[in-house]
This record gives sequence, C-alpha cells and structure tokens, in this order.
Amino acid sequence: MLETEIKIAEILCVGTELLLGDIVNTNAAFMSQRLAEMGIPVYRQTVVGDNPERLKSALAAAFGHADAVFLSGGLGPTCDDLTKETVADYFGLDMHLDGHTLEKIRRYFADTGREMPENNIKQAMIPEGAVIFENDWGTAPAMAVEDKKSGKTAVLLPGVPIEMTTLWRERVHPYLCRRSGAVIVSRNVHILGMGESTVEEHLRTMMSEWKNPTVAPYCKEGEVRVRVSARACCRGEAEGMCDEAIKKIRATEVGRFIYGIDVGSVENALLCRLRAEERTLAVAESCTGGLIAKRLTDIPGCSDAFLGGCVTYCNDAKMKLLGVRAETLEAHTAVSAETAAEMARGVRTALGADIGLATTGYAGPGGGTPEEPVGTVYIAISTADGERVRRLSMSPLRSREYIRYSAATQAMSLGLPIPDIDVTQSNGGKKS
Amino acid sequence: MLETEIKIAEILCVGTELLLGDIVNTNAAFMSQRLAEMGIPVYRQTVVGDNPERLKSALAAAFGHADAVFLSGGLGPTCDDLTKETVADYFGLDMHLDGHTLEKIRRYFADTGREMPENNIKQAMIPEGAVIFENDWGTAPAMAVEDKKSGKTAVLLPGVPIEMTTLWRERVHPYLCRRSGAVIVSRNVHILGMGESTVEEHLRTMMSEWKNPTVAPYCKEGEVRVRVSARACCRGEAEGMCDEAIKKIRATEVGRFIYGIDVGSVENALLCRLRAEERTLAVAESCTGGLIAKRLTDIPGCSDAFLGGCVTYCNDAKMKLLGVRAETLEAHTAVSAETAAEMARGVRTALGADIGLATTGYAGPGGGTPEEPVGTVYIAISTADGERVRRLSMSPLRSREYIRYSAATQAMSLGLPIPDIDVTQSNGGKKS
Repeated sequence: MLETEIKIAEILCVGTELLLGDIVNTNAAFMSQRLAEMGIPVYRQTVVGDNPERLKSALAAAFGHADAVFLSGGLGPTCDDLTKETVADYFGLDMHLDGHTLEKIRRYFADTGREMPENNIKQAMIPEGAVIFENDWGTAPAMAVEDKKSGKTAVLLPGVPIEMTTLWRERVHPYLCRRSGAVIVSRNVHILGMGESTVEEHLRTMMSEWKNPTVAPYCKEGEVRVRVSARACCRGEAEGMCDEAIKKIRATEVGRFIYGIDVGSVENALLCRLRAEERTLAVAESCTGGLIAKRLTDIPGCSDAFLGGCVTYCNDAKMKLLGVRAETLEAHTAVSAETAAEMARGVRTALGADIGLATTGYAGPGGGTPEEPVGTVYIAISTADGERVRRLSMSPLRSREYIRYSAATQAMSLGLPIPDIDVTQSNGGKKS
Repeated sequence: MLETEIKIAEILCVGTELLLGDIVNTNAAFMSQRLAEMGIPVYRQTVVGDNPERLKSALAAAFGHADAVFLSGGLGPTCDDLTKETVADYFGLDMHLDGHTLEKIRRYFADTGREMPENNIKQAMIPEGAVIFENDWGTAPAMAVEDKKSGKTAVLLPGVPIEMTTLWRERVHPYLCRRSGAVIVSRNVHILGMGESTVEEHLRTMMSEWKNPTVAPYCKEGEVRVRVSARACCRGEAEGMCDEAIKKIRATEVGRFIYGIDVGSVENALLCRLRAEERTLAVAESCTGGLIAKRLTDIPGCSDAFLGGCVTYCNDAKMKLLGVRAETLEAHTAVSAETAAEMARGVRTALGADIGLATTGYAGPGGGTPEEPVGTVYIAISTADGERVRRLSMSPLRSREYIRYSAATQAMSLGLPIPDIDVTQSNGGKKS
C-alpha cells in the first residue's frame, strides 16, 4: 500500500445508462461528500459511457490534476464492463486471476442457490499489486490500483449504489484512513427550527477558522445539519475531539434547536424517543396525505412505537374516522387550529395511542384563501395532557412537494424537545 | 441563429455544492434524457466548481468532441456566478447590458413585492449575439451562445432544477427543433405487468431497426416505459408518426399491459380513470405504510377521487379502523389473502368509497416466515361486486424501499384494466 496522503481527488463514473439519463448519479454525490468530510477536495466529477477509449482519456485528464481518482461502475461480468482493464492498461499493469476472489464469487452464488455463470470469472481478474477490498455484498470486487512510480491511485468501486456505499464505509474509508496515517471521525448534528443563515452566524468562527475538527453546515429539505469531522491518530481521540466540538456548538444559541446527533432524520429521532419512553404514536394527515406515515414506516421496526394513522383528505373522512365535529368544520373550516386539534385527539383516541399528531393545510398549487394562503398548514399534537397547535406559514411560491415535506417534518418535531419557533417564513426566498 | 444540426453534445454542470456532494446532479440526467430523445448522443457529463479556470478548461475539453455543450449553474447574481463570463471569454465575445432582460428581472422582483438588489443587474449582461431564452420562472436568463466561425454552441441554463427543466421544455427544446429544421415529438408508453426483457423481446425489431420514429425502453422502479420519438417537419406529422408507432406496439403482446400514454405514473393513471368514471377511492395500508396515499396526494386535485385511507401498521389498528375480524387475524395472520380482502372491504365501507385498495406483507429486512418470506405482499381490491386478492412474491434480496414501492404500484394497478400477472418474481435477480 502507498503511504502517501491523498491531496486532490477526482471522481469518474462509468456507465452508458448515466449518459442516457436513465439513472441519476447519486454515487458522485456520495463519494464527494465522504471525501469532503475527510478534507480531500474534489476538483471534478466526470461521467463517461462504457467506452474504453473515452474512459482512458478521462482517466488521463483526471490524473492531470488529482493524485487519486475514484471510479464507480464497469466492474460487472459482461464484456461491456471494462473499467478494471482500462485502469490496468493506463498504468501498464498485467491482470491475474485472484483465487481468493474467485472463491468468494463462487460462494456468493452458492449462498443464493445459483450456479456461477462462466463470465463471472472475469470479475476475479485483478491488476497486479492491487489492494483488494473484499465485497461481502455482491460479486464485483472493489480495489485500489496504486502506481508506485507516480504515486497515483485509482479506487475502483461497483456502480450499484447500495453496494458502492457499503463498500465505501466498510473498506474504502478505513483504507483512506490508513493512507493518511490518521483516523477520521464525523458526526452529524441535526438542527430544526433555526434557518441555515442564522446557524452559520452563530457558528461562524468554528466554520471558518477551525481546521481540525472541521465544522460545516448542510441545508437539507428545510432542516440544517452541521457536520463535525475530526482527524487524529486513533479513533478514541478523534471521537473525543468531535464530542468536544459538539459541546461547544451546544453552548451557542444553536444548542436548543439540536434534536439529535447522528440520528439520521426527524422521523428516526421521534421513533427513538418514543421507544425510550415506551410511548406509542398515531397520525392523522390531511395535506401531508400519508407522507408522515410513509416516512415513519420507511424505518424497519417502527411498529414498536408507531401504531398507524388516518389519511383524511376529505371532510367526511375527518368526521368518520377521527370524529372531527361537523360544527368545527363549519365554523372554522378544515384548515384551522380547531380542526387540527380535533384530528390529533381523534386519531390518538381511535388507535389508543399515547400521542396523536395531525396536519391540515393548503399544499397548493391551487386552493387557499386570502387569510390562509397556500403554504398555511396547521400542525397539532395531542397527549393525555391536551392539545397543542402551531400554524406554519410557508411561502406560497414553494412547491407542493416542499410544503408537504416540511409540514411533515415540523409535525413530527412537535414530539421532540426543541422550541416551537416557526422559521419557515424566513426561508421563503431561498433556493429550493 | 446557427442553422447547423447538433451531432454530438456534452454536459457541463457548474457548482461547488455539486462537488461537495451537497446536492445530487439531477440536471445532468434530465438534459441527457432529453437529448437522447432527440437523437443527440451525449459523450460526457462533467461537473466543475465555481472556478473560472477549471470551467474554461472543461469547456475546451468538451468542445474538443462536441459541437454543443449544455451548461447548467453559475448564472446567479453573485460574484461566484461566472458561467456566462467564462463562455464569452472562451469564444472571445464582449458582454453587453440587455435592456429587455433587465426590465424583465426588475418586473420579476416587483411582482413578488421586492426591490431588485443592485447585483442582479449582472444577470442582464449578455454575450454579444447570444440567443436569449426568456425566463418567466426566475431571474437568471438562459441563452445559447453560438460561435459562427467554429459552428460550436454553448447552451446556458440556471442550476435550480425546476427553473432549468421548465426553461428546457419551453425554450431550449423548440430552439433545438428549429436548429435541426425539424419538430421532435416524444410519447411515453407506460407498461405494467411485463418485465423489461420480455418487452424488449417483443419490440426488438422496432428498437434496433427503426430510425424515425425511435423506440427505446426505460426501466423505472418496477415498471417499464417505452419512449417513442418521431422527427418531422411539422408537429402534426411527428405526432402522426408517434401514433402510428404506438398502434404497432399495441398490436404486439405488449399491448394489453399498456396502462397509459404520457400518463406520468400509475397513481395518475388511476386518478384519471376514477375521475372519468366518477368513482371514489379509499386505501388501507399495512406494509406500504402510507406510501399509496402519499403518492396519490402528490398529485394536486386528487381529492376529486381520493377520499383518504388508513395506515394500519398493527393488528389492533386493522380491527379498530377497518373492522378486520380477530378470528381472521388469528386463523390466517395479518399477512394473508383473507386479511387483505377484509382490509380493502373495511376501508371502502368506512369511507363510503366505490373502491377500496389494501396491502399487507413483509417488506423486510426482518420478519417473514418460511412460507411467507420477506417480499411476500398481498394486495386486494374491493368494490360493490366483491373482493379480488393477488399475492406478490418479490425477491427477499430486494430492499425494503423497492418492495414497498413496487407493492404500492401493483396495488394501484388493480384499479386499472391490465391483466393480473405477477412478474415480480422473475425480476428478482436484476440490479435494483
């Protein structure tokens, strides 16, 4: 293994299906993000088709700037798959059949009750001297091909995103840490209820002046994440540095808007809290139309805490399933604090849950009234102690998708211990 | 305007946020797909940061092969935004202030009740001779910068996806048609219940031999789309050619699996059909957990036909909300044809809908039994005529996300006039 640190990277994705636009290149974003976390700048991302000449010229162009090129795709068993061969050719390396890799591929097929087709042998051909990343999640072996003379490295990964991301986490990240002689640990700080620019204001010094650990904000669908990354000679020390940095972030104004560390999402944070408190949840959705339930049930094992819910898209459903009173709908309309409260209480009672959440509003593009324009959503929480309602006012220029997603996020946040401050209005003018 | 046809294209996306992996590059996929439809091959997609030197060298590299480069991003009002300036510099063109564009930008701000900041004037600076694509959906003007000497063209579009895609449809597509002296019309044929390879088998001749119209399949989350594109001197003729091709596709075995033309999605096809028949729908979801309701309510105006539904993630909810009998759950378990049928009937009755749909199954990764492993989902439809149930067996190796999405799609397809043939098993080994 080369023992030089990687200073500049490029990303090179291979696949005609990318050039045809049949699939979106999530691999490039994933690899870029992971490299940024490690402090390795990415100068360029390139996509070429399954064409060895163009791949070779893209490789040469990438190595013109970078000391490492991260490739995904083209490691399959068919004759189209030529990434490995092209990289070996570029570095002037021979290929040899790797017995251990072949044995692994055979076993992979045996374990899923199939016989290995002959052309999969191709996947066990490895450029001489390559560092093999054992693939326990598929048949394409990943590897780092290092050129001792020039000090350049090509890291080859399969194109199927789930395989690629798993291999990155389990094999490539440790390899890069070994190369840099350091361990890099990252933590995501999840923030809700404070806009990105305000977060940046409070953390400005950390963001601009700290070199290790680094502190960087990411804005993601209406919430803010701050990623803290520390580099040290051992994991314990890097973790300690992250913890220390997070303690400092918590001590700022941002602190009380933090709903979790490495918790993935609001829905997961809510489920974790419910499990810890042994409480159960039911949801009643009008404008979000099933999105809250969908996001909760995206998470395996959610049934510990999530009982179910009702999508009550018409008034009749609100009355029949949730017991919302006709008088309430008449006096206040379906988009009102009163209706939201009755929905939350209704679903909690109907399902015998500890907590009921509800949404009702105008997601657009049509609908709304002068007083309650598109973007107005009432969210409510009901517990044995009673109901609490918030009114969200998002910009009517926001997309239906954004309004629904953000309303679902904020409704779930009612079950988390963060302040009730509506910042959606102030985000109205931002890029979506 | 240049009157030469574009033979080879490259795509060049500009934005440091792409290189940091903060956003996924959907623009490249969109542009590639649109160009493929028009028969213009894309040789490479490249992403560079907001760095004029690297942008200029990427531009030079792209024009090394391509006669047109499609750029997105870097047209904003800040000093980081340098795409326009770099392209003008590359072609050796001066920039001038375009009065009409400036007026449009001023009006855009006025219409949203804001004053135009001074730095937005920058957005009205245009390279000399550029073909301006008026932007009615934002402030960044899009344009084609044509180099008369070399015959090369740079098409500049903003980076915000909704603005970019709208401008493409309304301005760039017609421009490209004018350039090629032809009108290109595309139609999407939506197919469900027949696997991609079988579709390809039946349409092989059309796909490989037809040059105009072209016929190309796209596999998308468990369903197949066939895109028919025709080029002619006027729209009517191109449309006629598409219609003729679709008639031929309908005449093959594929025909009876077609659920719509240009209908967007199964959920939209179902809503259109319900509206046409003035019927209403309610859904009961266990393993799909709100996903069907979410997908239906993604569509504005769905409330004409969609009344609502229940997410019954636990047995108790199935009994309380849908009236599923305890004996049924005990004798057959929650994942059974009997439970699915009672759920569909229950939700139809509870909401007074014409049609009830239901799902219950094991989405994984945990759960399942030897007889009913992960990937087993029962889907049911209930009408006044009674219930109909189908058992889906997807590969247990499929992701939870895939199993849920595909089950939701197939459940909705029960309301469409296509045959009940389960092809999910045979897709088990495909890339997801």
